[in-house]
Amino acid sequence: MALRLVTFAHANTIRPGAMLGDSEVLDLTAAGLPHADMAAIIAAGAPALAAIRALVANPPAAARHPLASVKLLAPLPRPARNIFCVGRNYMDHVAEGDRTRGITNSELPKFPQFFTKAPETVIANGDTIPDHGATGVTQWLDYEAELTLIIGKPGANIAKEDALSHVFGWTIANDVTGRDLQRRYGQWFKGKSLDGSCPLGPWIVPADELDASDLAIQLWINGEQRQSSRTSKMIFDVKEILHHLSKGFTLLPGDVVMTGTPEGVGYAMVPPQVLKTGDVVKIRVEGIGELTNPVG
Amino acid sequence: MALRLVTFAHANTIRPGAMLGDSEVLDLTAAGLPHADMAAIIAAGAPALAAIRALVANPPAAARHPLASVKLLAPLPRPARNIFCVGRNYMDHVAEGDRTRGITNSELPKFPQFFTKAPETVIANGDTIPDHGATGVTQWLDYEAELTLIIGKPGANIAKEDALSHVFGWTIANDVTGRDLQRRYGQWFKGKSLDGSCPLGPWIVPADELDASDLAIQLWINGEQRQSSRTSKMIFDVKEILHHLSKGFTLLPGDVVMTGTPEGVGYAMVPPQVLKTGDVVKIRVEGIGELTNPVG
Repeated sequence: MALRLVTFAHANTIRPGAMLGDSEVLDLTAAGLPHADMAAIIAAGAPALAAIRALVANPPAAARHPLASVKLLAPLPRPARNIFCVGRNYMDHVAEGDRTRGITNSELPKFPQFFTKAPETVIANGDTIPDHGATGVTQWLDYEAELTLIIGKPGANIAKEDALSHVFGWTIANDVTGRDLQRRYGQWFKGKSLDGSCPLGPWIVPADELDASDLAIQLWINGEQRQSSRTSKMIFDVKEILHHLSKGFTLLPGDVVMTGTPEGVGYAMVPPQVLKTGDVVKIRVEGIGELTNPVG
Repeated sequence: MALRLVTFAHANTIRPGAMLGDSEVLDLTAAGLPHADMAAIIAAGAPALAAIRALVANPPAAARHPLASVKLLAPLPRPARNIFCVGRNYMDHVAEGDRTRGITNSELPKFPQFFTKAPETVIANGDTIPDHGATGVTQWLDYEAELTLIIGKPGANIAKEDALSHVFGWTIANDVTGRDLQRRYGQWFKGKSLDGSCPLGPWIVPADELDASDLAIQLWINGEQRQSSRTSKMIFDVKEILHHLSKGFTLLPGDVVMTGTPEGVGYAMVPPQVLKTGDVVKIRVEGIGELTNPVG
């Protein structure tokens, strides 16, 4: 089983950890790892991963916690700057969006479209996605399952063939979106950055343990499957995303980059579907795990 | 003269300060202020400002530095998250942009368009704006003079009538833009977030010392005036910007919000003008000061 790096809260501290099977967490700080948090592990890179693998292979008994006794946070609970996102990156999703506007001959995007979500939008696996219903801010909350990467090695003007060497690891995110806001405000930031609109996790799988180029990506609402595709269907793959994003712009360790969502989002369904209080959104990405969040 | 809060580097430390006239800086740390940096001053708010005003009124001799002996940084050298920006917020700028696309009957935008610039794009007054020419990333670098505000009091769903109470102070920014990237990538983040593309400063004037609702805003390239307008000509004024931006989204102390640029940008000139190595961009906002940066 691949290494799964977590951030968890236990006894009023927030610490980095690693999953031991499915029901235990190894407290990396208690086990002697010198890196205080996930950001420090990412910045340290391969030597930190080697040290963690040695600890996981031979975990000190005193550093093992039952999963039920800790609270898993997002692996990066508060990224150091806005999360970078790519829009319209699966052809069938481009087409379904176009159909809602009466366009039936969709064109393949020539360049990726980048926008951001604020760091404080991040919530953990299991946390409630605010429906913002009480304030009337949005009447049209929607979901987007996305393969998500964490930058390890900094760089600008990254060549496509070097891009994967800049990836520290993989996780899952839900790009929760206020569709009405996304349209009303023209640029997408406003509809994409509502408080609590970025479920992220539950953990990071290091890039050297997982080839993410052709993974199943699926999403269910209350058990009903809505999205099912493969990461190989991206229009701009991870190499191209990082190549374009880093043009004249330095990517930094700990940057979070979401890679776009496949078809099956609520706003393109007939009739259109809206996330509402009581719904449960579950995302699964093959080789990584599941990210599940209620709406409320 | 209004209080002008700076961040400066001196003897290998970075400290908060206040201008004393035009040629001295009061070292607030040496003068005994307990707040370690500008972010701490902003978070503390009115009590910190009262303490600073008392120090400026009676500055300890040992805490006075000649301006020439220190390096002024941007007042917030590294904002805690991406800078929030508003596009198309002066009618004559909307119209000049439309003209470049053959549109002569411009419509007033109904909602502000929000996008972001990464925190690391920030550079100080006097720093060089990278032209990115060596990498060929952009062939069309452009300038945008903008009144810029710093959030003091946190809040979401801010009412228009309460909005100004959330503003800590005012500064100046240049929203340097790769026009070719802005168009090519659809969403504006890519063209707006090149390394070094956010000159910010030179200082912050507290909001209780300056009514920013009708200030002259001007920009010169190599002494030739390109932009000249007034902040009263914004389509969405500061109250409306914060009202919209904070819908379902919590603004935090230290957030930087740029309010849009008036007409006169290079890309809308006939023929279009491009920033190039050796150019000097000077922005003046009445009541705040001047922000000057060479291109190279």
